[in-house]
Amino acid sequence: MNYKFSERVQALKPSAIREIFKYAADPSVVSLSAGNPAPEAFPVREIAEISAEILKERPIEALQYSVTEGYAPLRGYLKDYLKSRHNIGRDFDGILITSGAQQVMDLLTKSLLNEGETVLCEAPSFIGSLNTFRSYRAHLRGVPMDPDGMNLDALEQALKEEKNVKYIYTIPNFQNPTGITMSAEKRRRLYALAKRYGVLILEDNPYGDIRFAGKHIEAVKSLDEDGIVVYAGTFSKVISPGMRVGYCVAPKEIIQKMVVCKQGEDVHTNIWSQMVCYELMAHRDFDAHLRRLREIYRKKSKVASDALDRFLKPKITYLPIEGGLFFWCTLPEGADMPDFCRQAVLRKVCVVPGNAFLTDEAQPCSSFRINYTTPADKDLVRGIEILGSLARDVIP
Amino acid sequence: MNYKFSERVQALKPSAIREIFKYAADPSVVSLSAGNPAPEAFPVREIAEISAEILKERPIEALQYSVTEGYAPLRGYLKDYLKSRHNIGRDFDGILITSGAQQVMDLLTKSLLNEGETVLCEAPSFIGSLNTFRSYRAHLRGVPMDPDGMNLDALEQALKEEKNVKYIYTIPNFQNPTGITMSAEKRRRLYALAKRYGVLILEDNPYGDIRFAGKHIEAVKSLDEDGIVVYAGTFSKVISPGMRVGYCVAPKEIIQKMVVCKQGEDVHTNIWSQMVCYELMAHRDFDAHLRRLREIYRKKSKVASDALDRFLKPKITYLPIEGGLFFWCTLPEGADMPDFCRQAVLRKVCVVPGNAFLTDEAQPCSSFRINYTTPADKDLVRGIEILGSLARDVIP
Repeated sequence: MNYKFSERVQALKPSAIREIFKYAADPSVVSLSAGNPAPEAFPVREIAEISAEILKERPIEALQYSVTEGYAPLRGYLKDYLKSRHNIGRDFDGILITSGAQQVMDLLTKSLLNEGETVLCEAPSFIGSLNTFRSYRAHLRGVPMDPDGMNLDALEQALKEEKNVKYIYTIPNFQNPTGITMSAEKRRRLYALAKRYGVLILEDNPYGDIRFAGKHIEAVKSLDEDGIVVYAGTFSKVISPGMRVGYCVAPKEIIQKMVVCKQGEDVHTNIWSQMVCYELMAHRDFDAHLRRLREIYRKKSKVASDALDRFLKPKITYLPIEGGLFFWCTLPEGADMPDFCRQAVLRKVCVVPGNAFLTDEAQPCSSFRINYTTPADKDLVRGIEILGSLARDVIP
Repeated sequence: MNYKFSERVQALKPSAIREIFKYAADPSVVSLSAGNPAPEAFPVREIAEISAEILKERPIEALQYSVTEGYAPLRGYLKDYLKSRHNIGRDFDGILITSGAQQVMDLLTKSLLNEGETVLCEAPSFIGSLNTFRSYRAHLRGVPMDPDGMNLDALEQALKEEKNVKYIYTIPNFQNPTGITMSAEKRRRLYALAKRYGVLILEDNPYGDIRFAGKHIEAVKSLDEDGIVVYAGTFSKVISPGMRVGYCVAPKEIIQKMVVCKQGEDVHTNIWSQMVCYELMAHRDFDAHLRRLREIYRKKSKVASDALDRFLKPKITYLPIEGGLFFWCTLPEGADMPDFCRQAVLRKVCVVPGNAFLTDEAQPCSSFRINYTTPADKDLVRGIEILGSLARDVIP
């Protein structure tokens, strides 16, 4: 049979990043292309203890159907926690537990966006979110990044020029892929711009808790007195990504529509995992866990940056990071970045070519992304060393 | 802010069934309105043992990111199991693990259906699926049900009249809400019709393993030599719905598109739960578990049908069932079914009015759905007794 697919999926092309991942599956390859959190930071013992407790004392609650909105104790605890710690959430806001933060991108886009309407996003930005927006046939317009976050003059220009902008998508902390953090001043100006132009902000904050240097900067959502910011959080980087538990804080009216969409997508999120996240946050020393986790990332990022300094400089430069999972490396002007990434694969090191993160992959780009959290330290150093010797060989 | 939602969610209205569920939350109400599997059938001890084993021996595998297609051992085992037991799957088919079978409805519709295209479905049918189709702005056309399944003359008429039919949606075993099972002969004719008219079949089989009487009938998918049937299965009714693990067997070309859509929705399904399902199927006595489960459902359905015979007849009739979770009860001609359901709520019993399951809720309907698996036996009997006394009071 000749299958006729919908127009929306016909528009989704397999991306460059997927091609790279094929090679990354080869065990002899050093993969610096993943986005996995460091497995040594998973609270395995606590999860096993809590899990045994739940399955002993409340098995039916953990195994039966549950409500779409999410496990009530987790929603309640998160609401208080986010308000008291981060000033996130007002009376007009509601909270929804999702199957990872990825589902926030999906449910919000499904609820808000008609085909052809516009999402403004950082350029480059997280490819997973861009593809979700594309799957609803969003028109994407990229806004260039400065070292302190989105270029807001370019953003304002885009807000003036584009019709039917539904929201501005931003990852303000340790952005994927650049590692850039938006300054407090820019966050305030971003909020004011969105308010003035009557568009929403989708603030995606998967890495905020993985700050191992510098000073915490309040979320854009903490400024939200007008109900214009949709905040996406996740347990993927602080507990476990395999559990697929994320959450969304947004005005109740928006949450209600997202709930209806979620009902039709997966009914509710795995309830056992929601209970585990709740117990870990509410009845264990979650702060101590976060401190331990940050220390792991701090040390590992130091291993990576030492190797980058030693092997890649001066031909390849990179942006320093204060948190998150990625380093953004840039080749000198005139170098052929896609070819460099291909050559790296031949030498058994995978990185992600930077154009994969652009709204238009065909645009020129001289950067690539390195993940430092997945490989063991010695593989990480060896991988970077190979990239360095490749740079010496092919970059004039 | 005045939020502007997408046209697709504006079309989704809160349904009658949701109104009923509000009352069902009151603990003094006997809820016969849920769709929960019997909690006494959950293999709690095995799940706890397996879970402890996994978190001890392979914690990182269970907690780290995984692949969108699903846990490879589970996919492989299911492929062999479905082929050897049910003749489901050909060389051209692939298999995808989903977050419950609900996600199969979602991903398939997203992959295939442009706004305004048609889905033919049984009338009445499962409201959750209908709402998923609606969320992609499908045009729904209902095909009336006979006691042996969809009326195929009416189906052929619809295939002739409707343009852009993308698929026929059917629940052939112990259908939700009617409990009707499609005969083997009708399955063959349904397959032939779909083939002749060049449309796909979406076969949803959540209840097939809960047959406690009569003879097993092979799935429509078992006939599929042409790659025109998409089969949705789930562990929700045989292991646990709270885990949200389902699966889809469909031609690889279709699976590939669904994988791209799933990547953007939730990246992958909770991996710990996938591992538990695999261990239960492959390394425990799954057949013995299914036998025990069927026995629980057989006994409980007998409690329900005895009470229906005793308290509801002759004013209210019902269709006998050989499996599944539901009884479909019908009031005599001229009775006001919606009013009956409202009066039942006032007497603290919740049932679902049948029109909730129609493509157009405003159509007349004189039936309602009873679920017998959620309440304890004595509540089940008491609830049916109250319905009986209500019938005597209000039906002339």
